Amino acid sequence: MNIKNVKVLLFDTFGTVADWRGSIFRKGRALARERPLPEVDWDAFARAWRAGYKPGMARVQSCEVPWKSIDVIHRDRLDEILVEFSLDHELDEEVRRSMNLWWHQLDPWPDCIPGLTRLKAKYLLGTLSNGSIIGLSYMAKRAMLPWDFILSSDVFKAYKRDPEVYLGAIDLLGLKPNEIMLVAAHNDDLGAARSHGMLTAYINRPYEYGTDQTRDFNAEENWEVIADSIEELADIMEA
Amino acid sequence: MNIKNVKVLLFDTFGTVADWRGSIFRKGRALARERPLPEVDWDAFARAWRAGYKPGMARVQSCEVPWKSIDVIHRDRLDEILVEFSLDHELDEEVRRSMNLWWHQLDPWPDCIPGLTRLKAKYLLGTLSNGSIIGLSYMAKRAMLPWDFILSSDVFKAYKRDPEVYLGAIDLLGLKPNEIMLVAAHNDDLGAARSHGMLTAYINRPYEYGTDQTRDFNAEENWEVIADSIEELADIMEA
Repeated sequence: MNIKNVKVLLFDTFGTVADWRGSIFRKGRALARERPLPEVDWDAFARAWRAGYKPGMARVQSCEVPWKSIDVIHRDRLDEILVEFSLDHELDEEVRRSMNLWWHQLDPWPDCIPGLTRLKAKYLLGTLSNGSIIGLSYMAKRAMLPWDFILSSDVFKAYKRDPEVYLGAIDLLGLKPNEIMLVAAHNDDLGAARSHGMLTAYINRPYEYGTDQTRDFNAEENWEVIADSIEELADIMEA
Repeated sequence: MNIKNVKVLLFDTFGTVADWRGSIFRKGRALARERPLPEVDWDAFARAWRAGYKPGMARVQSCEVPWKSIDVIHRDRLDEILVEFSLDHELDEEVRRSMNLWWHQLDPWPDCIPGLTRLKAKYLLGTLSNGSIIGLSYMAKRAMLPWDFILSSDVFKAYKRDPEVYLGAIDLLGLKPNEIMLVAAHNDDLGAARSHGMLTAYINRPYEYGTDQTRDFNAEENWEVIADSIEELADIMEA
């Protein structure tokens, strides 16, 4: 496959662009400084919150429950873990709503802005994320992520790794699959993209899950690009 | 209706943000400088090209033909008018393809960048356009239109003024209709938006169609905002 044909780079966001664990950790610490709360391990809290993500999507994907956006899945999970972390009686509805918006305010890894800024001069840049369009838009606005467009699970009413997301993106962009490259820190996401004809770039993010990380320490296939940062991706793509 | 509730501004693009007539006119003149061509009235050419827009969409909307994006409608119409303007034998497939991309390279009216830049600091800004997501993305990239996200007809597989577009945008953003304001230079677009509960801002663009303009010289209803430019919209919205 020839990376010279690529016109559009699509980015996974949670983990690949956004450091969700560090961001939620910092938000939790800030909340604990604002009000008296029981002692909480906010890194464990972040990981526990994230642990509801795949099971929440799986219930949608199996049609056990009707379509719900990731924002609703995050909120359902928040209510569960507030009990687990003995915060259930401490935090009212208004605080819970504002906590759920932490996912719209994630910080990018430090290589993202410099790398994306270079890539934007040569390629059209978009997201292809399980986030919501409004959450991804607010995240980009706050962090100044220079997307040209946002594609998200709620546009397709499907979650990665379902084929509808990749095929929907190819159809919507009106391009050949090999004119599109998916950039992700997750081998299975890249595997799905490749199975639909897209090119693939692996960004190594070995600290995404912290002590919960059990995979994605390395590229597991011969992805077209294998890099340790989005700046290195820009080097390889000659941007 | 209270404009204080507004969180998101959605912009019509062709006519409201982009001066399609002036842009196509300038592109045509540049093409004629590059190669020997019969004398062409490029303003008339731009208006004739645009005149295929509504009939082309109407054939989709009536289900006479299956879904096609505006880029395909523009291309179909181009082939028609090249005959009308005696250019049919002058311009080959490669030139036609690049001419069709003129619609992805439209210049904004001069008040757009200053007005949108101010509005972006206070609101989430998106398109709600009959353009294609890829065309709108390239247009924004070239002209540096500071959209936070792009919503387009091809996301909804429907054209304004069909309800699917407005209702689809409200659903996708997960907001109350009155938290969204449509900004447009066309009274009927605003009428449709208002019928679905959105707030409305009219931008007066009396030169959009040139000698073909027969309406939209003035606000025809009591839209929440009535302005002569996007900078004036920013004034009124206290951005």
